[in-house]
Amino acid sequence: MRISELSEETGVAVATIKYYLREGLLHEGERTSTTQARYDTSHVARLRLIRALIGVGGLSVATARDVLDRLAEPPESLHELLDTAHPPLRPQPDEEVDTTSAAEVLHELGWELRTAHSEPVRRLAAALEGLDSAGFPISREDVLNYARRMHQLAEAEVAGTPQDPGEALRYVVLGTILVEPLLLALRRLAHIELSGRLLP
Amino acid sequence: MRISELSEETGVAVATIKYYLREGLLHEGERTSTTQARYDTSHVARLRLIRALIGVGGLSVATARDVLDRLAEPPESLHELLDTAHPPLRPQPDEEVDTTSAAEVLHELGWELRTAHSEPVRRLAAALEGLDSAGFPISREDVLNYARRMHQLAEAEVAGTPQDPGEALRYVVLGTILVEPLLLALRRLAHIELSGRLLP
Repeated sequence: MRISELSEETGVAVATIKYYLREGLLHEGERTSTTQARYDTSHVARLRLIRALIGVGGLSVATARDVLDRLAEPPESLHELLDTAHPPLRPQPDEEVDTTSAAEVLHELGWELRTAHSEPVRRLAAALEGLDSAGFPISREDVLNYARRMHQLAEAEVAGTPQDPGEALRYVVLGTILVEPLLLALRRLAHIELSGRLLP
Repeated sequence: MRISELSEETGVAVATIKYYLREGLLHEGERTSTTQARYDTSHVARLRLIRALIGVGGLSVATARDVLDRLAEPPESLHELLDTAHPPLRPQPDEEVDTTSAAEVLHELGWELRTAHSEPVRRLAAALEGLDSAGFPISREDVLNYARRMHQLAEAEVAGTPQDPGEALRYVVLGTILVEPLLLALRRLAHIELSGRLLP
């Protein structure tokens, strides 16, 4: 199909498709003349994936390219796959954040992580510090309860990881980026549902 | 204290403090001369809150101001507080998104919401559509399971809502913005912890 048909099929504007081609997010079509190229269903699938990462996942174009590049290079084993495959979240946690309280929480939970100061640990530390400095501290017990609930949820997710490293990588990266907005939407809807019944 | 001391106390650069003053996020200090003003602990607390919203919560300056303005005007009752008090998330869900499958999910859950096409419903619809178009569909049963888990978590949260409308508003807005990064960090850490034990 031509670029105009690819645009119609996916709902992505021709100018945007050209931008993704220039930025290397979308692979080139098969040249049919110096100014025209032919695109196929692989381009349709790729464009849909790009739109999901940017539109729903909220990634920048640069981060989306990084994620797509990573998906193209599956690791040899699943060993520590998650620690390296987690896509960056915005905002990035401060490198300087004090991870003491986060480490205490992890210790109390008995979660032994291989890397002591990995990105999610700093993110946890930043989240705790943010609650505290906003004058909205939550108790250690509440943090531990949140952690246990997330752990239960993660158990089912990790159990479903495909054996093939390439598929596992896709499962982890997309499952992280695209399930996060789902969880947050469901939590907000649950708040509304409950407040309609429980609050005056 | 002077602006330089306020900067030292909070770790926020003087230029940034001046920017927040100009943008109306931070209230003016008490003028002591045409070029100087005195600041107090209320400015320290406010600056920490602003930093938490922008740094940890990931809000833009404009959205942070909107949230802070909303916090200054508590509603008269808790009635439908949550539906209006939820801070905007980025990215904004598409206005045009088809909410049919989201409505089906809510119906199956038996969650009766007062507003049929509110922002979180569109957000849920966008999340479901994103998973689907990325070639990463999850089953209806999985969505319902996620929803039930988020509902359990929300129950404890809503039960803790303060009675005073002003405090309740603060609880809802900050609890939403600042607990979301906490939950996502904990989920990622749980993935890492589990994969270290369960995956080859």
